[in-house]
Amino acid sequence: MSQQNENKKKIILTGDRPTGRLHLGHYIGSLANRVRLQHECQQNILIADMQALTDHAEDPKLVRESVLQLGFDYLSVGIDPQISTILIQSMVPEISELTMYYLNLVTVARLEKNPTVKDEMKQRGFSRSVPAGFLMYPISQAADITAFKANLVPVGADQLPVLEQVNEIVRAFNRIYKTNALVEAEGLVSEVSRLPGINGKSKMGKSLGNCIYLSDSTDEVKKKVFEAYTDPNHIKVDDPGKVEGNMVFVYLDAFASDKKKVQELKEHYRRGGLGDVAVKNYLVEVLENFLTPIRTKRKELEKDPAQVMKILKQGTERARAIAVQTLKDAKEAMNIIY
Amino acid sequence: MSQQNENKKKIILTGDRPTGRLHLGHYIGSLANRVRLQHECQQNILIADMQALTDHAEDPKLVRESVLQLGFDYLSVGIDPQISTILIQSMVPEISELTMYYLNLVTVARLEKNPTVKDEMKQRGFSRSVPAGFLMYPISQAADITAFKANLVPVGADQLPVLEQVNEIVRAFNRIYKTNALVEAEGLVSEVSRLPGINGKSKMGKSLGNCIYLSDSTDEVKKKVFEAYTDPNHIKVDDPGKVEGNMVFVYLDAFASDKKKVQELKEHYRRGGLGDVAVKNYLVEVLENFLTPIRTKRKELEKDPAQVMKILKQGTERARAIAVQTLKDAKEAMNIIY
Repeated sequence: MSQQNENKKKIILTGDRPTGRLHLGHYIGSLANRVRLQHECQQNILIADMQALTDHAEDPKLVRESVLQLGFDYLSVGIDPQISTILIQSMVPEISELTMYYLNLVTVARLEKNPTVKDEMKQRGFSRSVPAGFLMYPISQAADITAFKANLVPVGADQLPVLEQVNEIVRAFNRIYKTNALVEAEGLVSEVSRLPGINGKSKMGKSLGNCIYLSDSTDEVKKKVFEAYTDPNHIKVDDPGKVEGNMVFVYLDAFASDKKKVQELKEHYRRGGLGDVAVKNYLVEVLENFLTPIRTKRKELEKDPAQVMKILKQGTERARAIAVQTLKDAKEAMNIIY
Repeated sequence: MSQQNENKKKIILTGDRPTGRLHLGHYIGSLANRVRLQHECQQNILIADMQALTDHAEDPKLVRESVLQLGFDYLSVGIDPQISTILIQSMVPEISELTMYYLNLVTVARLEKNPTVKDEMKQRGFSRSVPAGFLMYPISQAADITAFKANLVPVGADQLPVLEQVNEIVRAFNRIYKTNALVEAEGLVSEVSRLPGINGKSKMGKSLGNCIYLSDSTDEVKKKVFEAYTDPNHIKVDDPGKVEGNMVFVYLDAFASDKKKVQELKEHYRRGGLGDVAVKNYLVEVLENFLTPIRTKRKELEKDPAQVMKILKQGTERARAIAVQTLKDAKEAMNIIY
């Protein structure tokens, strides 16, 4: 069997928590990969509304609205629902059922030792006041991944401990219930470094106002680019400027296709004589080139949100058929089918 | 509205974990009440197979076999499936889904503070190695109770903190999602004191060999009664004997209908001249009177286990219709119906 055929058979589980629209960081970090991978693998993209509720229990409106926004984002960047399966987590009850059974195979101590969960709890200011649902989200992710028999999960390096825990559950289940119903998953670690916020802060966030959304208008893009963090010591045009840590160049590296031109601009900037305004204008041009077709497609989709929801539901239905089978296999192994 | 009508409308959720057959302790502690209450309330009896797996994850065979045994036990003591609804937990996926949403409303710290859970963890030798599923069983019980809109839950006094936690979840959910979808439940605290093991140990257990099962044969009953703990100082027939803490009398108090005769026996035993064998023979007679019709009914049921399973499935279907509606109401309130 050729390497290509091997790859073709890989089943991917990836997705997002619907807690806002997607931005350029998401594009670089995952969407670009998904657009590519959908041709090589059988790709499932999960809109994880239940998981979003684990730390947004009091803001279901945001979650609800973001589900459709994610649909717009996915389709407008080129996720093809004919070959990728986009699905809504809460519409696959089998995920909840599998989670319940997996909960018995993991100790609380083990959950608390998970470094990813620990970090995320810290970020959110949780300690022992962590909602139970949040602490056990790796178990729920085990259900997300195994339900669809995924064997390849694109992850950031910081998410690897969660995947390890998922595979521990898979092995425990298969061992205890003498079955092969569950499949271990391999991490596909992204080699792309994380895109920092346009203001130079490494973390992007809606509340930080430092993300350029895929759905931002030309004016919003301009405004954000012109507020970009550059080199604070590059005051006069003639001053030599720093390219490292200069967000305008970081974004150009990520989005400009004319690498030669970017190289020339960098050299010019370094030796002095190139003003921020000129480089920023070029970045606006590059981003506009990138975003215009996405925006056009989005405008079209926004005219008929019901059609987009229909696509999400069709994907969900297709994926659910697999989850139903997995749950059946799992319950058969546990011998609790009556 | 008359008091009786008020009562008629109460919806009960009760049930058992399928981890073995039921014994006389269960009869006194709950089954007798259920047989009575089914005429006054709308009673749901949950066979909690998923909950049984929280601490029997490695012994699903016991759980599986016990489901049918519970069916035999219920029907043979007089639970009428025409008026009581017997159902199997794992066949109501809505319970798992509700549990997932409730998990977000309870902190881990709160779960760990629950005195009932703490005690039970201690009994099982769990500490931080407690399976996550076990720690959150009160959340899963909240789903059991609310799914069927139960407002009355028969409990032992030691289970009241779990019910309090259930009601906390109900209040949090209804407050956050501005709904009345969930109903608070009242505890119906049993006034009957717990029946001790026939060997005088307060805890009954299969492994302790001190339970008389509803399904025990005459020989088994005789054997167990003759091993009963009586008064270790009552050596010769003529010796005065102690009635308090004497299991034969404790069981006579619980099962003999001829209270006058029991009183006379107690007095005779106290003043001396009444041998253990005589009282034990009388207890065997009393228990045989009690168990014979139950055994007869059970024999009949055991001839057609498929029919019993059918009854459980029909009950499950009936109950599930309510759970489907509750989940729909809850998801509507959370605004995650698409």
